[in-house]
This record gives sequence, C-alpha cells and structure tokens, in this order.
Amino acid sequence: MVDDRMVVGADVGGTWTKAVGVSMRGRPLGLLARMETLARRGPRDFAGRLAALLDGLAGKSGRRLAAAGLGLAGEVDAGRGMLRTAPNLRGWEGFGFKAELGRSLGVRVAVDNDANMAAWGGYVLELGRRPRHAVCVTLGTGVGGGVILDGRLHRGASGSAGEIGHLCVEPDGESCHCGRRGCLEAYAGAYGIARTARKLLAGRRKAGPLERLCPGLKGLEPRLIALAARRGDAAARAVWRVTAHYLGLGIADVVYLLNPEAVLLAGGVAGAGRLLLDPVRRFLDRQPFRLPFRSVRLRLAGTPHLGALGAALMALEEAA
Amino acid sequence: MVDDRMVVGADVGGTWTKAVGVSMRGRPLGLLARMETLARRGPRDFAGRLAALLDGLAGKSGRRLAAAGLGLAGEVDAGRGMLRTAPNLRGWEGFGFKAELGRSLGVRVAVDNDANMAAWGGYVLELGRRPRHAVCVTLGTGVGGGVILDGRLHRGASGSAGEIGHLCVEPDGESCHCGRRGCLEAYAGAYGIARTARKLLAGRRKAGPLERLCPGLKGLEPRLIALAARRGDAAARAVWRVTAHYLGLGIADVVYLLNPEAVLLAGGVAGAGRLLLDPVRRFLDRQPFRLPFRSVRLRLAGTPHLGALGAALMALEEAA
Repeated sequence: MVDDRMVVGADVGGTWTKAVGVSMRGRPLGLLARMETLARRGPRDFAGRLAALLDGLAGKSGRRLAAAGLGLAGEVDAGRGMLRTAPNLRGWEGFGFKAELGRSLGVRVAVDNDANMAAWGGYVLELGRRPRHAVCVTLGTGVGGGVILDGRLHRGASGSAGEIGHLCVEPDGESCHCGRRGCLEAYAGAYGIARTARKLLAGRRKAGPLERLCPGLKGLEPRLIALAARRGDAAARAVWRVTAHYLGLGIADVVYLLNPEAVLLAGGVAGAGRLLLDPVRRFLDRQPFRLPFRSVRLRLAGTPHLGALGAALMALEEAA
Repeated sequence: MVDDRMVVGADVGGTWTKAVGVSMRGRPLGLLARMETLARRGPRDFAGRLAALLDGLAGKSGRRLAAAGLGLAGEVDAGRGMLRTAPNLRGWEGFGFKAELGRSLGVRVAVDNDANMAAWGGYVLELGRRPRHAVCVTLGTGVGGGVILDGRLHRGASGSAGEIGHLCVEPDGESCHCGRRGCLEAYAGAYGIARTARKLLAGRRKAGPLERLCPGLKGLEPRLIALAARRGDAAARAVWRVTAHYLGLGIADVVYLLNPEAVLLAGGVAGAGRLLLDPVRRFLDRQPFRLPFRSVRLRLAGTPHLGALGAALMALEEAA
C-alpha cells in the first residue's frame, strides 16, 4: 500500500520563510513554497499564514500531512516549541509555535533553531549511511552549526549547543557580530570573508578580476570572490586561504573535542567548493594527533534548502 | 543482606600505578595501593603484578572482586581493551589488558585512557546529582579531559574525544608537547604555567616570594606559584591571570560547542583554587551569549585519585 502522507518543514528567517516536503521515508519531494516572513506583523499572524502555506504544499502534492517541523532563527526552547530570544524576529519570543501550529495543522510539530534543523538535514541527506557522530557547519552571513552524537542532535543544557561560529580562532582578532573578537564567524562568515578581501585588496595597485566583478569593492560576496579566484585572481585566492586557515582551526578544535566520523560544510559559502575544502583538508592533515584526523571525513553539502528539509526530517524522526 | 563485593580501579601512568576500591554503590572505600609501573618489563609482567595488587586490595578489605577498571596513559581502544599508541608506556601497544586481566582476576575488566577515567570519576563524585552533560578538564603536566553527554562518556569515532588540552587558544603561540603551537596545554599545563612564570619573572629586578620559593627559578611548580601568589607575589598572581585567560578561552569554546550543565577542573593544577577559578568565572561571565554561560556551573575537584576511582566507577557502570 502506498503511504499517501508527507511531512513538511519550514525554515523561518528574518526576511523569507521557505517550506518543503519529504515522504514518510524521508525522501525530498521536490516541492518548494516561499513567503515573506513579515516579522513585524507578529507571530500569531505568521503562524496563520504558515499553516496555510504548509497545508497548500500538502494539497499540491495530493498527500495528507503527517507531521511538521519548524526551524526558527534565534534561541529556541525546543521542548516548549518557542523562541527565547530572536534578534531577527523581534517580538516573537514566548509565542508557542508548537502548540499553535499543532492545533491549526492537526499534527505534531517539531520546533528547533534553524542551525540545528539545517545540521540535521545535512546529517541525514549528505553523509550517506548515517555516521554515528557528525558535526555540520553552516557557512552563511553568520556561521552556525549542529552536533549529532550517537545519531541524535545534541542540544545541550539550554538548547544552545553547536555554536561553532563562536569558537575563538584568533584572540583579540576581528570583531564578530556577537560582540566578541576573534570568533570563527568573524573570518568564515560572509561578512568576515568580505572584510578579509577588502584588506587584501587595499594594497593592490592594479585591478584584477575581483575588482572587475565588484566595482568599488561593493557587493564582495563569497560567490564573486570564488569566481574571481577561479579566474586566477591572486588576492581572491588568498582570501580563501585565509578563510580556510581559520575554518581549519575551528574544525580541528571540534575534532579534538568530539572526534566525529564526519564534518559537513553547508550554506552559501560552501559553494566555494575546493577553494575552501582543499586547504582545510591540508590544515587537518597537518595536525599532530593522527588517529582522530584520519577518522574524520570532510564533506561539502550540495542539497539546497537543508534548513527546511532538516525541519521536515526532524519532525519525521520525532514522529517515528 | 550486606553486599560483600567491591570494584577496583587502577590508574596506570608511565612511572606509578595507583589502585583503589569502591563499594557496589560506588562509594570510595578509602583503600589505596601503589606500585611502580616498570614499563620496560613489558605489559605481561605488569599485568601479572597488577592482578596481584588488585587481588591484595580486595583481600585487605575482606571483599570479593566484582569487576575491575583500568585507566592507561595513551590512546586506548576501549572495546578491545588495549593501547593503540603510548608514548609513556612504550612497547605496550596491542597487549590485550581486558582479556588478560579478565582471565587472571576472573571478573569483567573495563579499559579506557586515563583522562577518560579521571573525567568519569569527577563526573560521578564531584558534581552532586549527575548532571546530564558535563565536561571535565584534568590539569596536570599536560591537560586532558573527558566529555560526558546524556550521562555517558563520549568516546568518539576512534576513542579520541575529549582532547581539551589541544584546543587552539593562541594560533602560532607557545609550543605544545604535541608538536603544535598555541594549544591550551601549552598555557594551562604545568610546563606551560612554568614557562609563563619564567617570562614574567625575567624582567623583574627585585626578587619576590616566588624567587625565594624557587631559587634560580628551578622547580617552578604550580603549587609553589600558587603559594607565592597567596603570599602577595605580583608576578605569581599575574601567572594565574594569564593561565585563567587561556583556560577561559578553552572552556568558552567547550560551552559554545556543547552547552554542558557543568565544567569540572581536576588535577594538580586545580589546587590553585580560587586563584584560577575566579578569573575563569569572570572570563565566562563576559561572554556575549548569556544563556549557555548562565546554565554552566564551574567546579574544582577535591577528591584525590580520581583517575583510579573513575576506572573503578566505570567498571561498576559497565557491569550494571
């Protein structure tokens, strides 16, 4: 008998909300719906519109909803299914998404922060047969992450675990959006990479591919820095070496502490591909402790919408 | 009915081996036996002498052996109960301690590395009612550690997890015994602390309490640096501030990544007490992420022989 049910997942950011669906076996169904988050209208308004979006996604695929997952940008109380603090979703703190959406959708709802959901999505979809212990690093504007141990998401005492972007890789180094200095995010987040690029370009007399792609050094996105590097821009290549150095330091810390089977790099910045992966691998290969570094696979995530897919897959896991 | 059984544990270092006993409820029995490890005589000779030592410990207390635990200095394959690599126990690699001692003692034997056993001992004996997630940092000549998640020791993919001493806290910083630079151990291990003291004393014209305790700056042990600090030596106080700064950086990394309920500082260096604890607490209180740092308790271990006790308690746990 064909199972005519599905599980939906949504990734709720400060600006956009994306929703996807997976089969009861966890296979992505190739569905995607988007809407503006419109955070100012408040969480109740949002929850109403989201329920309609998710219902619509199920309707379009001709399947019944079995469960739903929600990844929210901010500090989440996963048990209660609510935001504790949310710089990008102001005023949403304390609203019970789990209860509210559970009522309106008539199914169980899993809620966690967006980084944990993305990490879970990467763990399930990108690493082949699930390894026992894995760490996912999401490289976007900021750097987030999630820790999976013994096949389960490790949330920690207050649901705050996995803040890989705030490992200190350069004491008194560059400033991070969190207010501290020298965090991994300050070097491997998109804004940190752009800062590295500006510094490396400042001393250059003759414009290269990177200046031509970003006139006036505006819009120094990781995507364009990668493109310039592929076109032979020496400074752009140096940007990726610096980024990889710090990413290597952070990943090495994770390996010394947790000794995982796999580390997955996801998020837009991971689109730099081998420009990032190769020097990080070389960095890890130089570590004096051989056993944990021989045991760890380093992979780039290729699946889009891992945040929303991970939310759906987490809901599926919790419903099992 | 009184249970007339006990569990023994041994901590096997490069020079000395210590053994202790715990009751079937995990209560330390106040027994202690020591012998020279005499590593050069090889593992089979050692195993024979250790079996006699442990049997003797049981005999002295009038109890029967129920299980035994062994913490070995080096990289351990806990499943097979053997050393993989052991810089301080050369030639012992590959010897099956679990099987050999199991045969000679007639009980089940748990084997792990000494840092994991000490962490387990600290977790069970020093943190009150067992917290869900905790990290133990053992501050000795080197800096080791152990990670307890969901009430169980996290060993990782190759049994190498918990190498807290090799988190990088100062890229291109002081050299570490592992061959890398800037590891936490290079600042918070006894040899790193002595190096900090030598540097801070180098510029001092007038001798203070520390020079009087360590004439010619020989034997700059953490214990004496703490004593000098308590006698008002400004340089000695500065040594602890520097040490605490780096320890704070390492512990903050652990909290960002794992969000534990408790962090325990054990080992000889922890004898510095509040000289170390207070500035580390202040460092953690300054972190911008409040939730995980409010959730974490920082404690000093006071129980001696945690390595051997932890080995016994791990054996008890595995026998349960």
